[in-house]
Amino acid sequence: MPIPSRPLVLFAALTACSRGAGVPPVPEPPVPGPVERSDSVRGTSLDYIVDTLATGLQLPWSLALLPGGGALITEKYGGLRLWRDGTLSPPLDGVPPALKSEDSGLLDLALDPRFEENRLVYLSFAEGTAEANRTALFRFRLDGDRLTDGRVIFRAAPDKKGPAHPGSRIAFLPDETLLLSIGDGYDYREQAQDLGSGLGKLVRLDREGRPPPGNPFDERPGSRPEIYTYGHRNPQGLLVDPRDGTVWEHEHGPRGGDEINRIRAGFNYGWPRTSHGVDYSGELISKEQTARGIEPPVAVWVPSIAPSGFALYLGDAFPAWRGDFFVGGLAERSLRRIRIRGGEVVLQEVLLRELRARIRDVRAGPDGFLYLLTDDARGMLLRLRPRGRAGITAPPRSSVP
Amino acid sequence: MPIPSRPLVLFAALTACSRGAGVPPVPEPPVPGPVERSDSVRGTSLDYIVDTLATGLQLPWSLALLPGGGALITEKYGGLRLWRDGTLSPPLDGVPPALKSEDSGLLDLALDPRFEENRLVYLSFAEGTAEANRTALFRFRLDGDRLTDGRVIFRAAPDKKGPAHPGSRIAFLPDETLLLSIGDGYDYREQAQDLGSGLGKLVRLDREGRPPPGNPFDERPGSRPEIYTYGHRNPQGLLVDPRDGTVWEHEHGPRGGDEINRIRAGFNYGWPRTSHGVDYSGELISKEQTARGIEPPVAVWVPSIAPSGFALYLGDAFPAWRGDFFVGGLAERSLRRIRIRGGEVVLQEVLLRELRARIRDVRAGPDGFLYLLTDDARGMLLRLRPRGRAGITAPPRSSVP
Repeated sequence: MPIPSRPLVLFAALTACSRGAGVPPVPEPPVPGPVERSDSVRGTSLDYIVDTLATGLQLPWSLALLPGGGALITEKYGGLRLWRDGTLSPPLDGVPPALKSEDSGLLDLALDPRFEENRLVYLSFAEGTAEANRTALFRFRLDGDRLTDGRVIFRAAPDKKGPAHPGSRIAFLPDETLLLSIGDGYDYREQAQDLGSGLGKLVRLDREGRPPPGNPFDERPGSRPEIYTYGHRNPQGLLVDPRDGTVWEHEHGPRGGDEINRIRAGFNYGWPRTSHGVDYSGELISKEQTARGIEPPVAVWVPSIAPSGFALYLGDAFPAWRGDFFVGGLAERSLRRIRIRGGEVVLQEVLLRELRARIRDVRAGPDGFLYLLTDDARGMLLRLRPRGRAGITAPPRSSVP
Repeated sequence: MPIPSRPLVLFAALTACSRGAGVPPVPEPPVPGPVERSDSVRGTSLDYIVDTLATGLQLPWSLALLPGGGALITEKYGGLRLWRDGTLSPPLDGVPPALKSEDSGLLDLALDPRFEENRLVYLSFAEGTAEANRTALFRFRLDGDRLTDGRVIFRAAPDKKGPAHPGSRIAFLPDETLLLSIGDGYDYREQAQDLGSGLGKLVRLDREGRPPPGNPFDERPGSRPEIYTYGHRNPQGLLVDPRDGTVWEHEHGPRGGDEINRIRAGFNYGWPRTSHGVDYSGELISKEQTARGIEPPVAVWVPSIAPSGFALYLGDAFPAWRGDFFVGGLAERSLRRIRIRGGEVVLQEVLLRELRARIRDVRAGPDGFLYLLTDDARGMLLRLRPRGRAGITAPPRSSVP
């Protein structure tokens, strides 16, 4: 594929920049320059360019784009880093100690809906040891490039053993409470149907990590008051449509059976009573793919794509994509564009297969560009922008995005 | 949905026409007029109109568009009808007697590659009784609107019991031999892996119904010489890309596991050793979804859409669709547009859900329009044309397409 000259210059500028800024040098993997891709679909030539904005991220997991430019990035087994003016900070002080193993580590990030006033940031992570750990939510204030007032405001219960299936994504509802997805802990899948356990659930919390009034099971004896929905496996995608407050989630299935779900308070999403997948051994998990009282998924992937990261595109840079969802694929090494109308998937497109990169997170930026993290020991921050529309290239230290 | 005035007039004209032509009146179901649909995708407004060309077809199964206009249409439990000049003929004399029950009846149609010279037509059907039947291939000459020289040129062996899973679609290869798909007979699924049985196979035949030289197993003792590929379940889609001779097939899976396959001579497509679906009971058919020596599908549908009919669009009327595949969905009541690049599905779009019609066949016409049959006791012949591009409306007896 031809490498256009300008993005290559941009990449060189960013690299030089991160070297010259007094930060420890990032490991220098053999990273491709910006990738040019021309995708002709439906006779319209929808051209975009993939810019490599940062390299050398260690298993980056989540990206929170900051108003005014820059982003916070978690590295699963590393720390929390600030990407600003084209440079990556060293890991910031003050993050909570995390269990760093397999799925577990520092996980999702979300800005407070009033971030510009209160500078609050929420960070989900796996807390504890291999013998006893839990998905937890840490809240801090981003004061310049320092973390202050950090504390753990929520801990899922009960504890589980092993690092598998912590979840977890965070999304704010229109009432400024938040949803947090919690995985089933893999070995604890039956608890996803148990309202007395926090595993395999979406929970709804206020800014202090407490269950606010109005949760669907908060008055049911024996049920955990934070539970919002149940029957989930390992959800790594969660978003709220700002236009109408609709909540969308996706989760990893077993062998086959990844799902996109429309989330409604109090609903049962079925795991492990229903699934379109089978166990990794090939054995059945359930004979039922659907059942009475269980909300069916809006989309199912068999074989699994291993979805992670979820964005709803409402920007202007790609008018043809407005209203579409984007899902990162780890196993598929792809970015999927998905159109849902009337509760059904009417279009799916597989993008970026040529990058051969596991996509861990995808976010729509305020500039209308898409931002991606690749799941790799030498992970990258990538940006998709329309061809013919320049990324910010000069001066290289200007605020991006 | 608003009904535009012109297509409605067209519909009225066709109806009047078929009444006034001396043919027995077709049953008059409460049929919608032409359906107008405006589908805005990717910011381009891709508008098309669905015209209802004929109504009152009894479970139509296959459509062969004739050069010069008109079409032959099979009705599964009825006969073979000629649609020409906007009218449907009565069932033509001379078709072979068929087992008419459930999946079985008169099935696919294909014109000889030299049809304009030799007027030969191939008709697949279920021959025999509920106790002993087989997928067979009948060849006749279309002499005006009469069938002549009709005879059965091929019979799959061994016989099976019951009307389920006969297949069957016909497609010609560039060398003017033909492929015929034969289902596994449902209760005989293990035979799909048995090269001594004709069930669950694609077979390659010459114009006389004989296995031509060069079939992959024709010198293997105990193997049937007509076999081209094996390990199929119930294929109702088969086509050859005229640009390069690539063969594509699709088949019904069990509960889940419908497949699109790229066909290569001698390959094993897995059924029932591998499947992405489970049995209707929910029980496992196989623990394996893939296995060594088994060609994996290019696409899998879980849950099943129940695919029937297969077209490759190479026309000019919808430039944005050029090179895309179209698959009818019986269970999904849809038409799927599918883009395959580099052996992978990169785009799928679900069309025509609003018709709520089981789509049994889809063909690309020489005029660049798409022609569909709906699977219903009062089935319809439909046409998709771009908005702003008129179908042939006047005079109503002109040659269509």
